[in-house]
Amino acid sequence: MSKAQRTQYIVGVDLGGTNIVAGAMSADGTGIHAVRSIPTRSEAGDEGVAGRMVALVEEVIADTQRETGATRSDFVGVGVGAPGPLDREHGVVIIAPNLGWTNFPLRQRMQDRLSLPTSLDNDANCATFGEWWQGAARGARNVVGLTIGTGIGGGLILNGALYHGSSDMAGEVGHTTIDMNGRYCKCGNYGCLEAYASGPAIATRAREVLVREGMRSAIRDMAHGRLEEITAQTVYDAAKGGDQLASEIVRDTGRYLGAGVANLLNIFNPDRVVIAGGVTAAGEALFGPLKAEVRRRAFTPAVNAAEIVAGQLPGTAGVVGAVASFKQQHLGSV
Amino acid sequence: MSKAQRTQYIVGVDLGGTNIVAGAMSADGTGIHAVRSIPTRSEAGDEGVAGRMVALVEEVIADTQRETGATRSDFVGVGVGAPGPLDREHGVVIIAPNLGWTNFPLRQRMQDRLSLPTSLDNDANCATFGEWWQGAARGARNVVGLTIGTGIGGGLILNGALYHGSSDMAGEVGHTTIDMNGRYCKCGNYGCLEAYASGPAIATRAREVLVREGMRSAIRDMAHGRLEEITAQTVYDAAKGGDQLASEIVRDTGRYLGAGVANLLNIFNPDRVVIAGGVTAAGEALFGPLKAEVRRRAFTPAVNAAEIVAGQLPGTAGVVGAVASFKQQHLGSV
Repeated sequence: MSKAQRTQYIVGVDLGGTNIVAGAMSADGTGIHAVRSIPTRSEAGDEGVAGRMVALVEEVIADTQRETGATRSDFVGVGVGAPGPLDREHGVVIIAPNLGWTNFPLRQRMQDRLSLPTSLDNDANCATFGEWWQGAARGARNVVGLTIGTGIGGGLILNGALYHGSSDMAGEVGHTTIDMNGRYCKCGNYGCLEAYASGPAIATRAREVLVREGMRSAIRDMAHGRLEEITAQTVYDAAKGGDQLASEIVRDTGRYLGAGVANLLNIFNPDRVVIAGGVTAAGEALFGPLKAEVRRRAFTPAVNAAEIVAGQLPGTAGVVGAVASFKQQHLGSV
Repeated sequence: MSKAQRTQYIVGVDLGGTNIVAGAMSADGTGIHAVRSIPTRSEAGDEGVAGRMVALVEEVIADTQRETGATRSDFVGVGVGAPGPLDREHGVVIIAPNLGWTNFPLRQRMQDRLSLPTSLDNDANCATFGEWWQGAARGARNVVGLTIGTGIGGGLILNGALYHGSSDMAGEVGHTTIDMNGRYCKCGNYGCLEAYASGPAIATRAREVLVREGMRSAIRDMAHGRLEEITAQTVYDAAKGGDQLASEIVRDTGRYLGAGVANLLNIFNPDRVVIAGGVTAAGEALFGPLKAEVRRRAFTPAVNAAEIVAGQLPGTAGVVGAVASFKQQHLGSV
């Protein structure tokens, strides 16, 4: 087979505070291979974690070669998604509180040790870009993505390209104010969307009600009476089992998210909104009130233009998007 | 002088609920000529108002010819900015509550009666685009513009081009929620930025304090004791004269606007934010608290990237931007 006909592969890496996920994709996006996840172990420090990432990429390359018959020279690059803020032009993670990093030149480190061109982009941008390339936002022109987990990250695709803003800070939708005199957010602000609708915020709201009102709820039983054991998942599970308090908390979460999404509709008028992350486990109990709140708050033509959907790539959106970001940065298009 | 060397002119028209403003610009943006303003008289109906717009454009063309020696054939087109929502592709104003219009094909009407190519764009978009082309946002790459008057309109410029969204609805920054349980907004939502910081909202907040607390304030005297006569301008004037209550209202207005602008910084990470409209008359008494609130609420790298400035084209930003929008739509660039 001549070189020109061979399939080219790009490795995507999604660096999180808890896990590093990586996998290889054919450059045309038709397949994903050798998806692997290892613990981040941030206590190893920036160089230590970078070393783990390099080893994981080598493992993914080796496994993909075994799986597909590709050779090392068929791998053309590595796309990395990392928590920000970061300096994309210089490939530097400026601050990553969950990792304890400051000004770490991650892209150069990966590139030097792998001898492969490497790109760096924000993890939440990558998750949205992945859903646009291969998931729930395929075919859309203007996309807002929200990834709801420990925090609420976001990404914007405008006219079919990732939008980064003037200093790579765009898309921090979790830190938009929906109630300017509201809850304290760990970013230092008051009333951020994230302070209401992230996983920990959902658990906190459940604990507050259970402590204050001494209400009966399956949430309490599922956490064995220990409020500190309550997680967002406990709340979703209790709601699915018909628990009234849990259902109210899920409904309120939908309303908060709906207010945040309505703001994004009135500002960006997207044709697709992708909600991804653990919160989608709550299903229609969340999406119903979310969409109702959006209809109540956003302009009708903006509501009509936007389809609001759940992510389709749980676990791999970040990897797929890191590959897409590499393509956009190094090959000019996706 | 050969045809190729002659200056080409484009007429810009800014259609508002109260006034129609028009003027001619040389296509390179170096000069604005024959700026004229007439009352809209919306009671004349859609066809009547369109007729007034046509007559005004003819007057501007005639006056510009007298002023510059241009001939009729030097005028290459007309850019119109109108209240929305509108359908840019078909040149139709879908709904304009202040004008009483529904589905009016304004672009075609103008084009037919003037025999000149005509473009249609949202008035708030045009105001921002005008500031980018010839005013306070010159040289910026990503711009958010807020025009604060009877309402709060907005425009977004991405990578040097107006961003319209998926159905020409982008940039409705006045209708983003800053307090989801807050004030009723005339759009039907609760807690919109516009419900706090538009001209009428500023006047309303002043009236509420004066009624409820019976406080002494220069505002009351300046309105001759008639609360219904209070306008936002009364409040700015009283604040300038050192009135304490008026100063507090201006400061709170700055805080509300700051919360809205902080949201836009965290989502959009612009390098320039232009605040235009009557509210800028309050000067540093407004911009000081506004910037402080932005610093308090937005991420530092986003704050550092964004210069927040007052508009430089009061009265003509919409006309200049309508010309720029014509250029973007008909000549491919500005």
